[in-house]
Amino acid sequence: MQFTAQEISLLLNGTVEGDAFVKVDGLAKIEDGASGSLSFLSNPKYEQFLYTTNASIVIINNDQQLTGPVKATLIRVENAYSAFTILLEQYNTIKLNKKGVEEPSFIHPTAQIGADPYIGAFAYIGTNVKIGDNCKIYPNVNIGDNVTIGNNVTLFSGATVYFDCVIGNNVIVHSGAVIGSDGFGFAPNPDGTYTKIAQIGNVLIEDDVEVGANTAIDRATMGSTIIRKGVKIDNLVQIAHNVEIGAHTVIAGQAGISGSTKVGKNAVIGGQVGISGHLNIANGTQLSAQTGINSSITEEGKVWGGTPYMSYKEYLRAHSKLRRLPEIDKKVHELEKLIEELRNGNPAK
Amino acid sequence: MQFTAQEISLLLNGTVEGDAFVKVDGLAKIEDGASGSLSFLSNPKYEQFLYTTNASIVIINNDQQLTGPVKATLIRVENAYSAFTILLEQYNTIKLNKKGVEEPSFIHPTAQIGADPYIGAFAYIGTNVKIGDNCKIYPNVNIGDNVTIGNNVTLFSGATVYFDCVIGNNVIVHSGAVIGSDGFGFAPNPDGTYTKIAQIGNVLIEDDVEVGANTAIDRATMGSTIIRKGVKIDNLVQIAHNVEIGAHTVIAGQAGISGSTKVGKNAVIGGQVGISGHLNIANGTQLSAQTGINSSITEEGKVWGGTPYMSYKEYLRAHSKLRRLPEIDKKVHELEKLIEELRNGNPAK
Amino acid sequence: MQFTAQEISLLLNGTVEGDAFVKVDGLAKIEDGASGSLSFLSNPKYEQFLYTTNASIVIINNDQQLTGPVKATLIRVENAYSAFTILLEQYNTIKLNKKGVEEPSFIHPTAQIGADPYIGAFAYIGTNVKIGDNCKIYPNVNIGDNVTIGNNVTLFSGATVYFDCVIGNNVIVHSGAVIGSDGFGFAPNPDGTYTKIAQIGNVLIEDDVEVGANTAIDRATMGSTIIRKGVKIDNLVQIAHNVEIGAHTVIAGQAGISGSTKVGKNAVIGGQVGISGHLNIANGTQLSAQTGINSSITEEGKVWGGTPYMSYKEYLRAHSKLRRLPEIDKKVHELEKLIEELRNGNPAK
Repeated sequence: MQFTAQEISLLLNGTVEGDAFVKVDGLAKIEDGASGSLSFLSNPKYEQFLYTTNASIVIINNDQQLTGPVKATLIRVENAYSAFTILLEQYNTIKLNKKGVEEPSFIHPTAQIGADPYIGAFAYIGTNVKIGDNCKIYPNVNIGDNVTIGNNVTLFSGATVYFDCVIGNNVIVHSGAVIGSDGFGFAPNPDGTYTKIAQIGNVLIEDDVEVGANTAIDRATMGSTIIRKGVKIDNLVQIAHNVEIGAHTVIAGQAGISGSTKVGKNAVIGGQVGISGHLNIANGTQLSAQTGINSSITEEGKVWGGTPYMSYKEYLRAHSKLRRLPEIDKKVHELEKLIEELRNGNPAK
Repeated sequence: MQFTAQEISLLLNGTVEGDAFVKVDGLAKIEDGASGSLSFLSNPKYEQFLYTTNASIVIINNDQQLTGPVKATLIRVENAYSAFTILLEQYNTIKLNKKGVEEPSFIHPTAQIGADPYIGAFAYIGTNVKIGDNCKIYPNVNIGDNVTIGNNVTLFSGATVYFDCVIGNNVIVHSGAVIGSDGFGFAPNPDGTYTKIAQIGNVLIEDDVEVGANTAIDRATMGSTIIRKGVKIDNLVQIAHNVEIGAHTVIAGQAGISGSTKVGKNAVIGGQVGISGHLNIANGTQLSAQTGINSSITEEGKVWGGTPYMSYKEYLRAHSKLRRLPEIDKKVHELEKLIEELRNGNPAK
Repeated sequence: MQFTAQEISLLLNGTVEGDAFVKVDGLAKIEDGASGSLSFLSNPKYEQFLYTTNASIVIINNDQQLTGPVKATLIRVENAYSAFTILLEQYNTIKLNKKGVEEPSFIHPTAQIGADPYIGAFAYIGTNVKIGDNCKIYPNVNIGDNVTIGNNVTLFSGATVYFDCVIGNNVIVHSGAVIGSDGFGFAPNPDGTYTKIAQIGNVLIEDDVEVGANTAIDRATMGSTIIRKGVKIDNLVQIAHNVEIGAHTVIAGQAGISGSTKVGKNAVIGGQVGISGHLNIANGTQLSAQTGINSSITEEGKVWGGTPYMSYKEYLRAHSKLRRLPEIDKKVHELEKLIEELRNGNPAK
């Protein structure tokens, strides 16, 4: 599909400078922009590219001043970055607008599927599954028995949702993510073996959640592992059984949260962070990458780092001294000797 | 399915107090219990809920004393927790009792499948595969050529077992787990490139093992990567080529074990632990979360922490001092000055 | 298939000592070698097994001296290890030489597939996909719309390649790997919620790359996430949006590289390493396992360790002192007291 500068300007409520009939069919960064692509300039750091880009159209701020000739057609808007984000979104919506049911797919006769679905080949939809309107179930997705899914949900290829789980509206689950696998629960026996504790709960994901590729969210032993509204989870994250993640919390790649821990809302959890089980993490907590949390955090909105963790400031100060530790150790030895000399009545140099 | 208090009491060899004909169709935590559900009380911390729960049946210990009126029907047993675990198990067995072969699935004509299987749609079973009795192969599972699988094995949706691997009895493999991918073996060339070393071994998983969601276990270069009897592996764990994990060892989420390392039996490996290659880890070793192991551990049954690792006690002590390091550094500077003054014959305040 | 010592010796340009007509059908480590298998001796540490192995054939170096009787047929070559590697490779090529299209698979009519493919059952190949010659697409693989794949590429079962991604020649992608999932990009709103930033770029993988099981490589926001020629990536690695990995860099299991970071060529990144976003990592950098990188590295070819990172030597020295920190702290206290005494005119013991 192609659009003219005129059409795009109308959509963005902007003003065209240059050829209003030039056509574009893709989006690009201003430094990469080729003929036929549309770009934007927002960060002054990139202004130089405005005069060199091969993009056919560039969106700029109303107040952007020009210091040289520009080849591209310009569209002036109040906020070039926001305007471009709107186009990105539109572009993606068109791009990902798959519809229809591909064959062969497996849809159990008891499953209920809402309006206008996409169901890819080799997708599996079990007994009594309920899926809302405008959902996209990509190829090789597995949806277990009794799962309930809301409207406008996308499950990308190879995602798995185990039986009995519940997913809200506007949720995106990326490929390879597993929702509802058994919690890691075993009762130790006196002979050193373990007996599995059946995990009969589920996972409950509220609206507007995104789950990254190859992330695993275990079902609760009983009750629900809960991912609240608006939570964003990156790739390869581990969420153990009976965890609850508060609304609008963000969890970066490869972080792990152990069983029964409750993370508050609006928290930011860095990459590769580990949080032990049965803890409470206060609202608005921020954890820098690789932090290890082994006790509850009760103060809201603080930033933490290190393993075991301390305040991020303390962490930076302490760890900056770490490489001086051998020198400190040596100096203490020297001081011991000097004091010994002084105490032996040998104070002069 | 519904069961009466009478029926459940018979199963558990218990004694009913209250309405023996009340029916339940689900299990719940005592604090969440709704009408129609069965719960239990074992931990005295939760005793208050015995008097407020809406669960229809509560299992309690024989010696549990009542300090107020209870709405629920009670079933008294010797050990309420164990009794409830038995019910959990029964519940799950009924729940997961899928049978039959769904279409389309791919079963190579040379494959042998035992009695009473469940084979989900889009499951792939390659040439010369041998599968024992009572196995459950969920949808979109991949079983490569020449794989041998024992009895009572469950492979959940999207699990993959590469060619030539061997799986024992009573093994559970969760969704997205990969068993038998190539070990990470490359020979460096003088020009900085790498040549792949063919990985022609396999993975051997003994009886009673559980493998978590999205865990990866690489095949051996030659011979076998071995997971011994009763090992429990959580989600997103990495087990490299030629590793051997001893019997009844437990490995928590996101831990990684590098090539050719041998972990003893009855060990407990915490979340996000990393173990370098070609090491031996003694029986009964316990590693706290995020520990980094870069040398063999020969003493059995010890607890370790930190990176690089030290005894867990030392680790706690050392790291508790870490945040004092800037202060220690400052004090050493001050002491140096004071001693300098003393040595210059200036000892008085 | 069986081969005689004579046939193998011809292939390797070697010399047979013993029964030239003995046959083997498999490869084994010298200490495990059973009758009918071929092994090799290169490392002098294993020489003892030369005299005890049950392997039918052993490849040895031309200059290997014998100190006792050997049961096996020997093949002498210039470099026993290299010779064996050649056989490993041959063995694997025969083993993995699947051909043909299994049914049911989904190949969109607009897809173009080169000569001599293997396409497993339940593989999904979307619209406008281009696949080169001699590719092996295992069962349950997902290839999204407009993906381009070169020659001699293997995608193992359950691997996923999202729409628009590009893969070069001789690439191997292991099971469960996800290529092209959305980058983790969200714009924070004043009310604490997040708006998804559409991720419209792709992933570009050059020739000779290997991607491990359950690894995730996110598509760029715009432009490409780039994996250069010859890069080797282990299992469960996270590569975020707009990252670029330089040629012939090796990344071990469970490492994570955050958004927009550029890693140079010929680098070696250890297991569970974390690298923050928007950094540059110099060519030839080596990072020991679990290292945390939070600033750019400009010097080429250095080795680093620790979190936050320091030179590997400093890291070893500093961390070796860490367990002495409580003692250092105690000594500083004692020194303070002693100096206090000295300053109070009490210098004698």
